[in-house]
Amino acid sequence: MTGKLIGVGLGPGDPDLMSVRADRLIRGAATIAYFRKKGRPGRARTAVDGMLRGDVDEIAMEYPVTTEISLDDPAYNTTLAGFYEEVATDVRERIEAGAEIVVPCEGDPFFYGSFMHLYERLRGHVPVEVVPAITGMSAAWTATGHPITWGDDVLSVVMATLPEDLLEARIRDADALVVMKIGRNMEKVRRALRAAGKFDRAWLVECASMAEECVMPLAEAEGRSVPYFSIVLVHGQGRRP
Amino acid sequence: MTGKLIGVGLGPGDPDLMSVRADRLIRGAATIAYFRKKGRPGRARTAVDGMLRGDVDEIAMEYPVTTEISLDDPAYNTTLAGFYEEVATDVRERIEAGAEIVVPCEGDPFFYGSFMHLYERLRGHVPVEVVPAITGMSAAWTATGHPITWGDDVLSVVMATLPEDLLEARIRDADALVVMKIGRNMEKVRRALRAAGKFDRAWLVECASMAEECVMPLAEAEGRSVPYFSIVLVHGQGRRP
Repeated sequence: MTGKLIGVGLGPGDPDLMSVRADRLIRGAATIAYFRKKGRPGRARTAVDGMLRGDVDEIAMEYPVTTEISLDDPAYNTTLAGFYEEVATDVRERIEAGAEIVVPCEGDPFFYGSFMHLYERLRGHVPVEVVPAITGMSAAWTATGHPITWGDDVLSVVMATLPEDLLEARIRDADALVVMKIGRNMEKVRRALRAAGKFDRAWLVECASMAEECVMPLAEAEGRSVPYFSIVLVHGQGRRP
Repeated sequence: MTGKLIGVGLGPGDPDLMSVRADRLIRGAATIAYFRKKGRPGRARTAVDGMLRGDVDEIAMEYPVTTEISLDDPAYNTTLAGFYEEVATDVRERIEAGAEIVVPCEGDPFFYGSFMHLYERLRGHVPVEVVPAITGMSAAWTATGHPITWGDDVLSVVMATLPEDLLEARIRDADALVVMKIGRNMEKVRRALRAAGKFDRAWLVECASMAEECVMPLAEAEGRSVPYFSIVLVHGQGRRP
C-alpha cells in the first residue's frame, strides 16, 4: 500500500513554532483533512493558511455537534462515534486507493486531540505516522515568563470539565498545575482554585503564542469571558539552587 | 541595550522536531552558551552539531558536579548555586557588552530545564526571550503509538527522584502518567508501579525521537539498565467516542 495517514501536530498556534518536519509536511501535502465545526473555518485549517500548495485537495471533517449536546448525555458519545466512523471510513478508502493524507492537528496530536479518534480507527489498517508538537500548555507557561516546574515538582494537567469536587481535589494535590478546556467552566475553576488555596498564584493565558495572546494573573480577570482554549496555570515552587 | 539572552528549546532530540524558530536561531547564532558536564561533549551541544555558523563563539557552562553529590546533601545546592551565579555573571557581562547569546536547551526550557536557573538570575537585568519546544514526553508517548490522554484524564508528570512512598501515591492517583528522571531510580519506579497496580500497563521509552530510540512494555525490560533521560509512561483510559 502506498497511501498513508500522517497526523501532524501544528503546535500552539504561531506557525514559527511548528516543527521543521510539520512545516515541510504541511507545505508539501497533496491532500489534507481537518476537523472543524460545520459553518466555521476551523482552527486547524486557519493555522495552515498561506502554507498550502495551490492544488491541495481538502477534506473538511465537520463535527455534527460540539457543545450543543452535554458531555454527560449518552447521545453525545453516540453521535460523535458515528461521525468518527464515517470520516474514518472515507479517509481509509482514500488511503487504500493510494492517497497520502496529512491531518493538521492543533497542539500535539496524542495529547487530548481530535486526531486520536481517527487514529484509533485506522491504525493497523493503513500506514500511520504521527508528528508530535509543542503543546499549548508549553506556550502558555512560556508566556507567563516563569518556569512551570522546579526540582521534583509533580505537574498535574487537569480538565476544567471535571466535576467540581474532583477538580478541587486535583488542584489541591498538584505542585505545578495546568487547567485546560476552560471556556464556560471558568467560574467552577475559580471556585475550585479558591477552595484549594491557589487562586492568588493562578495565571490566565489566552491564545498562547498567537497575535491575540493575553496573559494575566487570574485575580485580575474577574468577570472576563474566556475562550475554550484558554489555560489556567499555577507554577510549582520546588527546589531550586 | 542591544544584547539579549535567548533560551532556545531544542525539543526531544531529532533536529527535524525543532521548531522553525529554533532552527533559524541556532543556525544564525553568533554566540551560543550551553550546559554540560566537564569532560563531556554535552547533549545540548551535540544536538546542534552541524547546524552552527563556522565562526560561532561558544561558551561551555560546565557543571562542577552532577551525580557525585546526593540531591539531599546541602552541599549539592550550595555548589550548584555558586556555579549558576558564576555563569550568570559571565553571561550578563557579555550581554551588557552587546552580545546576543543563544542557549540551546534540551526539551522545553521552562519544563524541568537547566536554563531556568540561568534565566531566574538574569531576568529583569537583561532582555530575555524563551522559545518553547516539544517535550521529551510528547516524543515518548508518540513513540508508543498510543495517545497519552483521553476525555477528562488527569495527566501527572512525576519525577523518579521522589521518595518511594510519595512516588507510589502519585502513581496511584494518576489517570495518565509520565515518570521522568529514571536512570538509577528504575528499581524504585518498578516497585512503586507494582504497588500501585500499574506495572503491567507501563511502557519504557529510551531516547525518544533519536536514532537510539527504544520502546517496550516495561515488563519486558527486566534487568535492563536505562539512561537517565528515559521515560516511563502509563496511558490514560478516559472517555472516548
